Amino acid sequence: MADDLLARIRLIRSSSIGPVTYRQLIARFGNAQAALDAIPDLARRGGGKPPRLWGSDEAERERAKVERLGARYLMLGQGLYPSLLAELDDAPPLLIAKGDLNLLDRPAVAIVGARNASAAACRFARSLAHDLGSEGLVVVSGLARGIDSAAHDGALESGTTGVIAGGIDVFYPPENEARQKTMFDRGLVLAEMPPGTEPRARHFPCRNRIIAGVSLGTIVVEAAPRSGSLITARLAAEAGREVLAIPGSPLDPRAQGCNRLIRDGATLVQNAADVVEAIQPSRPRVASPTFDYEPPIEQFDGEAAGVVEALLGPSPVPVDEIIRLSGAPSGAVQMALLELDLGGRLDRHAGNRVSLRPA
Amino acid sequence: MADDLLARIRLIRSSSIGPVTYRQLIARFGNAQAALDAIPDLARRGGGKPPRLWGSDEAERERAKVERLGARYLMLGQGLYPSLLAELDDAPPLLIAKGDLNLLDRPAVAIVGARNASAAACRFARSLAHDLGSEGLVVVSGLARGIDSAAHDGALESGTTGVIAGGIDVFYPPENEARQKTMFDRGLVLAEMPPGTEPRARHFPCRNRIIAGVSLGTIVVEAAPRSGSLITARLAAEAGREVLAIPGSPLDPRAQGCNRLIRDGATLVQNAADVVEAIQPSRPRVASPTFDYEPPIEQFDGEAAGVVEALLGPSPVPVDEIIRLSGAPSGAVQMALLELDLGGRLDRHAGNRVSLRPA
Repeated sequence: MADDLLARIRLIRSSSIGPVTYRQLIARFGNAQAALDAIPDLARRGGGKPPRLWGSDEAERERAKVERLGARYLMLGQGLYPSLLAELDDAPPLLIAKGDLNLLDRPAVAIVGARNASAAACRFARSLAHDLGSEGLVVVSGLARGIDSAAHDGALESGTTGVIAGGIDVFYPPENEARQKTMFDRGLVLAEMPPGTEPRARHFPCRNRIIAGVSLGTIVVEAAPRSGSLITARLAAEAGREVLAIPGSPLDPRAQGCNRLIRDGATLVQNAADVVEAIQPSRPRVASPTFDYEPPIEQFDGEAAGVVEALLGPSPVPVDEIIRLSGAPSGAVQMALLELDLGGRLDRHAGNRVSLRPA
Repeated sequence: MADDLLARIRLIRSSSIGPVTYRQLIARFGNAQAALDAIPDLARRGGGKPPRLWGSDEAERERAKVERLGARYLMLGQGLYPSLLAELDDAPPLLIAKGDLNLLDRPAVAIVGARNASAAACRFARSLAHDLGSEGLVVVSGLARGIDSAAHDGALESGTTGVIAGGIDVFYPPENEARQKTMFDRGLVLAEMPPGTEPRARHFPCRNRIIAGVSLGTIVVEAAPRSGSLITARLAAEAGREVLAIPGSPLDPRAQGCNRLIRDGATLVQNAADVVEAIQPSRPRVASPTFDYEPPIEQFDGEAAGVVEALLGPSPVPVDEIIRLSGAPSGAVQMALLELDLGGRLDRHAGNRVSLRPA
C-alpha cells in the first residue's frame, strides 16, 4: 500500500486535478495508479493535451519530508481519515497530520472569527472553548490571530485541532509558531498542502472547508461582513452542519456578521450548553460510508464527450441536468465530464455544477 | 345604539364576566342586553348564585365621565375597533380611546422593553421608532419608563399609540403625565379599564395583550428574563403575530431576554428595514370578520351542564375535548360552560381550556 500512497500523492499534486476530479477518477478506476494510467487517454478524448502528471520522484521526496517532519498522511476513505470530512464532495484526498491523532476520533466543533476581534470577544471565545472542552468536544479552528488563537488556547487542555492553509512546517502568522508547535505536542495540526507551501489567499477558503468539514457545527464569534469566517459558516451550512453564532448589539459594528448569520437562520448561542443542545441531534452520528466505488469504467462510445460539450455553455449547469438533457447513461456523462476536465475544458463549481471553459 | 353601549358597559363591568365569557354571551344571545337578561337564569342552571350585574346608573356614570374626559368608546366588532385586536379570543369588549383615532387605521408595530434599560438601548429604541415612523408604521407601546417612553418619543411626529393599564385619566408612572397628555393631543392613548382605575399588577398582562393585539409584530428591545416584555412577546406569538428582537452580547446581562427570544424563534432585527422585511408578508392584511354571530340559543335540555360538569376536573381541559367526550352538540356544551362560568364554577385558561372551580 506504500505504492498506493505514492500514486495518490502523484494524482492530487498533478496540475488540474482537484479534489472533485480526484474523487471521480478513483470512483471510476478503483485506485490512484489506475487513474494515473488512464489520464493521458482521457484527456485526449476530452480535446486537450494531457496534463503534466506529478512525477514519482517528486511524490517520494514529499513523502520523505512528511516523515522527517514527524507528520503522517491521512488518505480519504481510509483508516483515520475523519469520516465527517469525507462526506464533502470536495473532501481533501490527502491530509497531512501532526499531533495527537486520537482527537480525530472525538466529536468536534469549530470556533472561528475575526483576526482583529475585540479583547472581550477573544476572552469569550477562549472561555467558550474551555467549556466546550469540558463537554467532551474537540475545538477546531484555523490557527489565525484573534478568535482562532483564543479558541485553541481555551481548549488546549481538553483537545484542539488547528487546520492551516500552508504546509505543516510553515508557521503563519509567524507569531503563532509557538502555538502551532505546542499543538504538535498537545493537540493536532492538519494541512492539505504539501510541506513548504507558503499560504496564499486562495488557500484559505480551502482550509475553511476542512474546518467546517471535520466539525459537527461551526460557531462564529465576531465576524466582519464578507469575512473568511462567514465563508466557513457557509461551507458548514452547505455540508449540512450546524451554523451557530454569538449575537451582539446592533450598535457594535463587529457584531454585524454574526447578527446577519442569525437572521439568515444560524442558531444563536450564548454558551457551551446552547452549543451542545444545538448539535445534539447530529451528535451520535453514524460514520457514513466514505467512498462509493462504482463498478469500474462502463462501455460507451467516445462521442459522449461531444454530446455533453454541446449541452454545456459558459454558465454553470448542474451535472444532474446534463445527464437528464443528454439522455445518456449517468456513467457515460460523468466520464465525458472527466475527459473534458482532464482536457482542461471544464470548470467545476459549488453544488455539483459544471461549465465549459472556452477552448 | 346608545342603549347598546350602556348594556355593553354593564355586561363587561359585571363581576365574573371576562372578555371570553363576554364574547360567548354575545355570540349566543346576539347583543349585550339579551345576555344581561339571560344571565340570572343561566347562572342558576350552572349551580351558582347569580352574579351581581353592573347597574345602569353606574354604567351611565362611567359613560358620562368618558365623555367629559374627551375620550370615546371603541366597541368590539364595531366601527373603529382595531380589526387585528378583534382577532384575539380575549379581545377587550370595550376600549376607551383618547387622541387621534386615524392612527387605528394604519399598520402598527409594537416596541417594548425594560423599564430600567440602558441609555444606549433607549437611544436605539427612540431611533428605531423614528425610522419605523418614516416607513409609515404606527409605533405602539405601553407608556412605561425606559424603552416604552423612548419608543413613543421617537415616533411622536409620525404616529404613536400608548396602551395603558389603568384608566384613561390615570398617569402611571407619574412622571409620564406630560408624555401621556402630549399623546392625547398628538398620538393616541387606549385603556381597557374604566376611568379612575389605578393600575395594579394584574392589569399589566391585560394591557400587554392589547399592545401585541393591535400590532403586526412586537419588537423587544432589552428585556430581562421573565419580564413583562417577554409576556407581550409570547402573547404576540400566540396571536400569530411576528415577534422580533434586538440581539446583544452574551456578556451583557440585559441582552439575555432578547437573545433567548431569538434562540426560541423570534426574528433578529437590527434596524427598521429588517422590521419592515419581517412583517411585510402579513402587512397587506385583510380585515378579518371581527365577530361571528351564531344563530341565537339552541334548544337543549338543562342536563348538559351536569354532563359537562361530570367531565370536568380541576385540571384545565380543552373545550374541544369536552365537546368530543360529551357527545353533545357543540352549542349545548358551550352553553353549559357558560352556565357554569356564570355560576362561578368555571375557570378559563389560555388555549381555550377550562377547569371546574371547586364549589
